[in-house]
Amino acid sequence: MSTTVSREIRLKSRPVGTPTAAAFDLASVEVPAPGPGEVQVRNLWMSVDPYMRGRMYDRPSYVPPFQIGEALQGGAIGEVTASNDPALKPGDIVSTMFGWREVFNAPAAALQKIDTHGLPPQAFLGVAGMPGLTAYVGLLKIAALKPGDVVFVSAAAGAVGSVVCQIAKIKGCTVIGSAGGDDKAAFLREIGVDHVIDYKKTPDLTKALAEAAPRGIDVYFENVGGAHLEAALNAARPFARFALCGMISQYNETGEAKGPGNIILAVGKSLRLEGFIVSNHFDMMPAFVKDMSGWIAEGKVKWRETVDVGVENAPAAFIKLFNGENLGKMLVKLA
Amino acid sequence: MSTTVSREIRLKSRPVGTPTAAAFDLASVEVPAPGPGEVQVRNLWMSVDPYMRGRMYDRPSYVPPFQIGEALQGGAIGEVTASNDPALKPGDIVSTMFGWREVFNAPAAALQKIDTHGLPPQAFLGVAGMPGLTAYVGLLKIAALKPGDVVFVSAAAGAVGSVVCQIAKIKGCTVIGSAGGDDKAAFLREIGVDHVIDYKKTPDLTKALAEAAPRGIDVYFENVGGAHLEAALNAARPFARFALCGMISQYNETGEAKGPGNIILAVGKSLRLEGFIVSNHFDMMPAFVKDMSGWIAEGKVKWRETVDVGVENAPAAFIKLFNGENLGKMLVKLA
Repeated sequence: MSTTVSREIRLKSRPVGTPTAAAFDLASVEVPAPGPGEVQVRNLWMSVDPYMRGRMYDRPSYVPPFQIGEALQGGAIGEVTASNDPALKPGDIVSTMFGWREVFNAPAAALQKIDTHGLPPQAFLGVAGMPGLTAYVGLLKIAALKPGDVVFVSAAAGAVGSVVCQIAKIKGCTVIGSAGGDDKAAFLREIGVDHVIDYKKTPDLTKALAEAAPRGIDVYFENVGGAHLEAALNAARPFARFALCGMISQYNETGEAKGPGNIILAVGKSLRLEGFIVSNHFDMMPAFVKDMSGWIAEGKVKWRETVDVGVENAPAAFIKLFNGENLGKMLVKLA
Repeated sequence: MSTTVSREIRLKSRPVGTPTAAAFDLASVEVPAPGPGEVQVRNLWMSVDPYMRGRMYDRPSYVPPFQIGEALQGGAIGEVTASNDPALKPGDIVSTMFGWREVFNAPAAALQKIDTHGLPPQAFLGVAGMPGLTAYVGLLKIAALKPGDVVFVSAAAGAVGSVVCQIAKIKGCTVIGSAGGDDKAAFLREIGVDHVIDYKKTPDLTKALAEAAPRGIDVYFENVGGAHLEAALNAARPFARFALCGMISQYNETGEAKGPGNIILAVGKSLRLEGFIVSNHFDMMPAFVKDMSGWIAEGKVKWRETVDVGVENAPAAFIKLFNGENLGKMLVKLA
């Protein structure tokens, strides 16, 4: 087996504010034949996710920052093309965290073989992967969802939010979803969301939420921050639980971020606001896989993808996340 | 038994911003002899507490708002002076919620007889009463305190905060207390607080907290809000727990309150912020009374009082809370 050329996206500079193409470099590297115990993988799909923005800052965090001049990391689904380890054979589908590149070699132990159970492989970057598990953990464990709860979800048409909405419906809850634009609103209605708020057409989120949930909300699944968080605090019933999954409106903040001026409501209403990182809850993976594969098979969970093609377009796909241009899971198809 | 004159403080108008004397009226009423099943009580001590500010707004809340023209309500300790119910006899000490008045009649069932166990009766408005229970519930139940935790307490020299500090020390924790002024700082050192921050002399609370807790904090007991909450979010270790008891810096806000601009840290650090109201946790009263009476007897819990005299001075005593003029429990001595 000879050398293979792989293109990859490297971090060129740390973005200030909303990332632009200038922060990224496209490079080509020669990948040799895999060494002893190694396999070679050709990525089929790679994921771009909002949390990756945090790794572009040089600061202490729950994951180390990306390094300038190095290829970006992140979830990808690939196919084994050569193997020097009996655990994997050519044609196997693997889930990896090597990220924004076309071809790479790695020890077999660093790769997770996937049985796709008939699902398209890229589903393991979305509904059946990390975003799906995030929704499951946040709603069932962090927010301790109960049947009959009124659940408010922001970024409800996204990879995580759309799964949150559907799990909440499966569990017998009333769901209010916020998203921007007609296509996303239509998708939310299609997946059974009871009240859709198009925040781009809504000058007063608190008023819209009060109309959608006249008796208040029991759970808020937070993906956005800012005005959404303030509206949720206003609408919260006593003892409401907030699962803080992300605050995409804040990720590119360059000035002084504006906090929720009504946070004091958390005292009088006995609210619980709890942040979480899915990687601290991988113990729930087996239960998630079992539940989710059943729900998909029964047609109870649907999903959408927004697909760009070619590793050279990964930066543009990533930037779309912050403009809200993706419906459902944002993916880059590599092969 | 003849009619008795009682003076009382009524809400004259709803304060805007920090309350002033203009919001209160002193009135005299004639209290008849108690009717069948009633007792007459002469208040010895009454309490002014920060939470009462919230009841001066006309808005839905966990307790109904005070009404214009009516006497203010709140905790008081009184002595039974006449009784038409065998459950109480003259000389009995009772804890009540009838508030800012000198003498009143009430059904015996509405009064709680106190066995003072040798403590001064006003201790049941402070360390052995609602503020003490608030500290106990917030620290042990809401914040789920563990031995070895690093605990940050704001308004640490107050009626609640000073008990929080001492329970945390009893439980084997490191305590950082914030308060304003030399007298309060000296009191905090006296009760064993490990690191005292005089916030009035501290331009940068985040820096001061980083110096006091180089490895971060595990628990924050929130009484103040604003810059204290932001500093606590900055200092929090992963999985830190915040008990949100009050935010006195916000109670008199007339403009748009400023929220914590760094609330997003709650996501990446997996923080839990939980508000609570002590009245939802009265199930912990027996355990509190048992623990606290033991700690006081062993000299492990000390307290301070700031005492004004006469019901006519209750408004001024209340206003002092928002200027930080009280050290420990703010009380009004009535008889």
